[in-house]
Amino acid sequence: MDLALLYSGGKDSTLAALVLERFYDVTLVTAHFGVTDAWQHARDAADAAGFDFRALELDPDVADDAVEKMRTDGYPRNGIQHVHEHALEAVAALDVDAVADGTRRDDRVPTVSRAQAQSLEDRHDVDYLSPLSGFGRGAVDRLVNAELDVEVGPSEEIPRSDYEAELRAVLADEDGEDAIRDVFPDHDQTYVHGLR
Amino acid sequence: MDLALLYSGGKDSTLAALVLERFYDVTLVTAHFGVTDAWQHARDAADAAGFDFRALELDPDVADDAVEKMRTDGYPRNGIQHVHEHALEAVAALDVDAVADGTRRDDRVPTVSRAQAQSLEDRHDVDYLSPLSGFGRGAVDRLVNAELDVEVGPSEEIPRSDYEAELRAVLADEDGEDAIRDVFPDHDQTYVHGLR
Repeated sequence: MDLALLYSGGKDSTLAALVLERFYDVTLVTAHFGVTDAWQHARDAADAAGFDFRALELDPDVADDAVEKMRTDGYPRNGIQHVHEHALEAVAALDVDAVADGTRRDDRVPTVSRAQAQSLEDRHDVDYLSPLSGFGRGAVDRLVNAELDVEVGPSEEIPRSDYEAELRAVLADEDGEDAIRDVFPDHDQTYVHGLR
Repeated sequence: MDLALLYSGGKDSTLAALVLERFYDVTLVTAHFGVTDAWQHARDAADAAGFDFRALELDPDVADDAVEKMRTDGYPRNGIQHVHEHALEAVAALDVDAVADGTRRDDRVPTVSRAQAQSLEDRHDVDYLSPLSGFGRGAVDRLVNAELDVEVGPSEEIPRSDYEAELRAVLADEDGEDAIRDVFPDHDQTYVHGLR
């Protein structure tokens, strides 16, 4: 069975791939807007972890809508959620049996409710899996430490391909670099260099 | 890392074991009340699937409380939930790094909320995992079909070791066989004969 997993090159979505690879032919899919080349970091991480990869370009209007939400809100949460929902729709429209993401039990964003999951499954005739949604932060950290070679650091210094990287670029392009600090709180990100 | 997985011998908890075995030294643990020998079915299923097994006897008062809830409610849901919470406490008290169960995304009972999960983790210094909580019914059915040799049939005919088997026996012992039909709706169960 073919499965497309939304992939950022970070620890969560890489661990999700390890959970699923016993059961599915997994392709890691990085959704992007063609704004930067950041998706290439995910391609390299997928390669290092030994998974097939494809990039999937989303409608740039989705990025504009997300940035507008973030600017209005003053925080990124709803904008990220907006992009994630569009990305799930896009991978569910691929020719696959199942789609998945790396959302964890303790994630605040993005989240996919049971109703959203069932709607996605019914409309696209695919299974939706969130293999880490039953894993807490502690378990994820311990499994990542055991399985993956990761680099950890501040968001702006770590090569990454999640939506945030491009949304930051769109926001900076429109409102200037200072706008990034207004919207995005400082936090650490991870980048996967390979399996242990 | 050692993990104890609450195990019934059915398809869900067996699939949960397959998801986790890459990451943990998994022992399948069947909680019971010493009322019947039904736990032996789970031992045989664990053996057929190639996993270590142990039986864990719970306080019989928990069964009595559960049966009283079911009798009062006229349905089994809250009684099953009561037993599951006690069983989780009991496995979390074992000398393991993590505990898990086979609850799925679409299960109505038992359920473990995020707050309950974190409380269990904090009090017992273990990780709690519900590896199928991000898997819907369709995905579970397709994966079970691909991975397991299962027998499906009515609850009363399938050898099984979930709480329901013993709670039925306690209820019948106290109130007679007819009481079982008053409390438990007809439904199919599965028993795992081995891996495909």
